[in-house]
Amino acid sequence: MKKYMLFASLSLFSFSGVLIASEIPEGMGVLPTQPAIPADNPMTAQKIELGKKLYFEPAISKSGHFSCNSCHNLATWGVDNQVFSIGHKWQRGGRNAPTVLNSGFWSKQFWDGRAASLEEQAKGPPLNPVEMAADSEGFVVTRLKNAGYEPLFNNVFGKNSVSFDNMAKAIAAFERTLITPNAPFDLFVEGKGDISKAAKRGMKKVSDIGCTSCHAGPLFTNNEFVAFQYGQDLGLKSVTGKDEDDHVFRVQSWRNIAMTAPYFNDGSVKTLSEAVKIMAKIQLDTDLSASDVSDIVAFLDTLTGDAPKVVLPLLPRPTGHALDWQE
Amino acid sequence: MKKYMLFASLSLFSFSGVLIASEIPEGMGVLPTQPAIPADNPMTAQKIELGKKLYFEPAISKSGHFSCNSCHNLATWGVDNQVFSIGHKWQRGGRNAPTVLNSGFWSKQFWDGRAASLEEQAKGPPLNPVEMAADSEGFVVTRLKNAGYEPLFNNVFGKNSVSFDNMAKAIAAFERTLITPNAPFDLFVEGKGDISKAAKRGMKKVSDIGCTSCHAGPLFTNNEFVAFQYGQDLGLKSVTGKDEDDHVFRVQSWRNIAMTAPYFNDGSVKTLSEAVKIMAKIQLDTDLSASDVSDIVAFLDTLTGDAPKVVLPLLPRPTGHALDWQE
Repeated sequence: MKKYMLFASLSLFSFSGVLIASEIPEGMGVLPTQPAIPADNPMTAQKIELGKKLYFEPAISKSGHFSCNSCHNLATWGVDNQVFSIGHKWQRGGRNAPTVLNSGFWSKQFWDGRAASLEEQAKGPPLNPVEMAADSEGFVVTRLKNAGYEPLFNNVFGKNSVSFDNMAKAIAAFERTLITPNAPFDLFVEGKGDISKAAKRGMKKVSDIGCTSCHAGPLFTNNEFVAFQYGQDLGLKSVTGKDEDDHVFRVQSWRNIAMTAPYFNDGSVKTLSEAVKIMAKIQLDTDLSASDVSDIVAFLDTLTGDAPKVVLPLLPRPTGHALDWQE
Repeated sequence: MKKYMLFASLSLFSFSGVLIASEIPEGMGVLPTQPAIPADNPMTAQKIELGKKLYFEPAISKSGHFSCNSCHNLATWGVDNQVFSIGHKWQRGGRNAPTVLNSGFWSKQFWDGRAASLEEQAKGPPLNPVEMAADSEGFVVTRLKNAGYEPLFNNVFGKNSVSFDNMAKAIAAFERTLITPNAPFDLFVEGKGDISKAAKRGMKKVSDIGCTSCHAGPLFTNNEFVAFQYGQDLGLKSVTGKDEDDHVFRVQSWRNIAMTAPYFNDGSVKTLSEAVKIMAKIQLDTDLSASDVSDIVAFLDTLTGDAPKVVLPLLPRPTGHALDWQE
């Protein structure tokens, strides 16, 4: 009897496996395996390794306390779960730290999308006075030299190549490796696994009500700017000064969204359920029922992939000499 | 001809391998492979893995910003290279953070040796108001439960086992894995490598002038209390109140000392050369020449082993919910 049941359940599985494809709303799909690589910053194993060291390098910050990983912690899905991250002298920034995971897939970086590449983005936080607070690009370069980075840069970029730009290039190359495959949703699309009925209802619902017109495609973002009239943050207007950019933000991806609370640019929303409800109301003028919210959250839960496995790097340090941290 | 030279150089090497043993001052030796394991805290793979997560877990701190790894950074030889570490609300502690590497070998923990075990030590920083600043043991336990640690503790310690004591046990178990074998000195002792002539002179000098009466044995510490009349810190007296404990500290190991600047309990000395000079003068009333200092530093440089390879853990987090960090 047991055998028969197993057989029945297996055929049901493959039967539903066939059905699956037609259930998936148009546009949704499996996370791509590799972000586009800029022509002027090819990826090499040595550059990725250097970038990883720099990603974990507190010497970039004035105090010697903060690295990229402080706020975009790879032990916690590329975020710090803070409303606003803690920066130099316990200052707080004004925007919630977005995850670094899969960021190689975004064509705009930062909440306001002001950086067009990871290379450009990586140059922001070191010099931001409320984040790492380094005095200047030269300050960072001197620190990296004092820490012992010259041979590592020279191996990757050629002679006398320790520079702020090359630092950013190496960090960006490392960040492009931080992708999260094998989410339950992806395995479902590939016919290698299933997701719950609630998740399937949520999947259909986000398509039906129009969430996926912006949170589109396999990335669940169209990588575009969209206005979101919520909170005090002016978004892109704070960069351009234009009224048409008021409260305009880049569309965030849903990938791993269940692991990156709190939510929104101001980190004001503590639960994914609440975030879903608010987004539907403000962006789509839709009042979701409690069960719709619950279904959508169940679907979003299926977008959590495998976090990248990262061996902690060993950072270069001068032997027998302290580095000169500052207040 | 090339073949002959290779042969000659190989036999010279093994020849010097035979000579080596007699050059090594009595007591010095290879780093042990494994610290003693307390009977009430056996090491298991699951416990070590849990301890690693807890070591990297910022949820232990009130702000959600600090983990053990913040100050005892495994990317930088188990230290943060700060004079005094940055803690809650940018407060600074009063003692230089000692390295966690090889700390399983010390029979006293903290600079003043007030903790007899790693288990006891691990319970200090979470509740220290200038470090992690957690309100109480219960506060930490609630945080760990909210983060999702219950199943992980239960796997290791049995049902309903999330507790402050078990947290410390798991962290201690992980810390006992953080050892640094294969220092050039160790390979030299084993006849597998050589050290420079300067290092050999330094090795003899530290024995001749008596450094190794305290910095004794393969650990280069006798694990005892010794008075060091330097700076304002009262050392053990600040714990016991006894005059006989004035400026008494545990003897620090020389293992990886070249990588853990700045030096001394108050982190006031920026270079190893200066530290060597001061120690010889204060502890042994010996004025070292510049070349003696240089030789001793060359020897200390040979005590840097292989840093442990650590795969960054993925920390448990509730899906779709923010954790409640506090100021």
